[in-house]
Amino acid sequence: MFSGAQISLYPMSDDFVGIILGALHALDPYRSDFRIETDDVSTLIVGPPEQLFPAMRDLFAAAARTGTHCVLHATVSRGCPGEPDDPICTPLSGAGVRGDLAGRIAQARNVVAAAELAGQTVAAQFSLYPLGAVQHMDEIYGCIDFLKTSGVFDRSKNFCTKLRGDAGPLFATLGEAFLRFGAPEGHVAMDLTVSANSPSKI
Amino acid sequence: MFSGAQISLYPMSDDFVGIILGALHALDPYRSDFRIETDDVSTLIVGPPEQLFPAMRDLFAAAARTGTHCVLHATVSRGCPGEPDDPICTPLSGAGVRGDLAGRIAQARNVVAAAELAGQTVAAQFSLYPLGAVQHMDEIYGCIDFLKTSGVFDRSKNFCTKLRGDAGPLFATLGEAFLRFGAPEGHVAMDLTVSANSPSKI
Repeated sequence: MFSGAQISLYPMSDDFVGIILGALHALDPYRSDFRIETDDVSTLIVGPPEQLFPAMRDLFAAAARTGTHCVLHATVSRGCPGEPDDPICTPLSGAGVRGDLAGRIAQARNVVAAAELAGQTVAAQFSLYPLGAVQHMDEIYGCIDFLKTSGVFDRSKNFCTKLRGDAGPLFATLGEAFLRFGAPEGHVAMDLTVSANSPSKI
Repeated sequence: MFSGAQISLYPMSDDFVGIILGALHALDPYRSDFRIETDDVSTLIVGPPEQLFPAMRDLFAAAARTGTHCVLHATVSRGCPGEPDDPICTPLSGAGVRGDLAGRIAQARNVVAAAELAGQTVAAQFSLYPLGAVQHMDEIYGCIDFLKTSGVFDRSKNFCTKLRGDAGPLFATLGEAFLRFGAPEGHVAMDLTVSANSPSKI
């Protein structure tokens, strides 16, 4: 199963290049596991699905710690038809045993409860798209049930769900939403925006 | 059918608030047709599906004309289950006659060829998600056939397609991709990023 993300970091600052280059060091511990390609719009990271959200968390937290208003956007995908299978994307934990929705919601909640705090408060909103499945809304509603008890749920918005909280449990919540819902080997995509230090906190 | 977008504008500048507020005037001609709601992460616009991309084009071109490196992100959606029907979303052109894929590709190409130039070069990348359909890849591959002859096709990337060109035909291409592919009343979502004035043009 191919898994990865197209990620972009937007520091709202004249020194956006310096802030991006400074934050990129946070990806160093992950570089040996990922294939990374950059162009003028985004950076592709391809690798084990469980490492995608920790890598994004560390990259974004490094940029946000400058105090600048920063946004991360990511188009995250797993199981996309037409993408080659790639050994680099092998799940670290194996394919795993999948249970019913209620069981998966409980497992996801436990992972988030055990997540370490990152010391950086962030807001996020995302849309989860389980593709090629006629019953795709069942998985989405199950995922929303999990999100509402994750401890970082903010509110439902049109087309997306908004989270707010410490980057540790918040990115853990995003990872669980992405990996534990939708068919195990199915095509699942996520449209993710994370924001910190906004002057217009609401 | 409910249609709209969550949009965000990111000027990479210390004066990001001023640039955003200045560009928002470009939405004035559309305000009477849209419901608009803003929070700290994005602005929701809900209205006729044909006006979503012209409104985003005018907003983004206004920000890009400052010469600042700017990015627009939008989560665009139509036909989302669970969203209420809303008279404000009635298509201006009626439901329209839908033909086979080849006919729709030709129609989309004609619309793009007739689009006025905006005088602003931009890069874009997007993912199109026709949801709840087992054959979703047929519509995606048909859409890609259209994109390759749109005149603004740049290249295929993992998880998305990249465009480059004048904002006029480029946003027309995005609108055609969104409206003419996927089931007419089906759930279709788009994850869209548009960039201008990047210092790392590739």
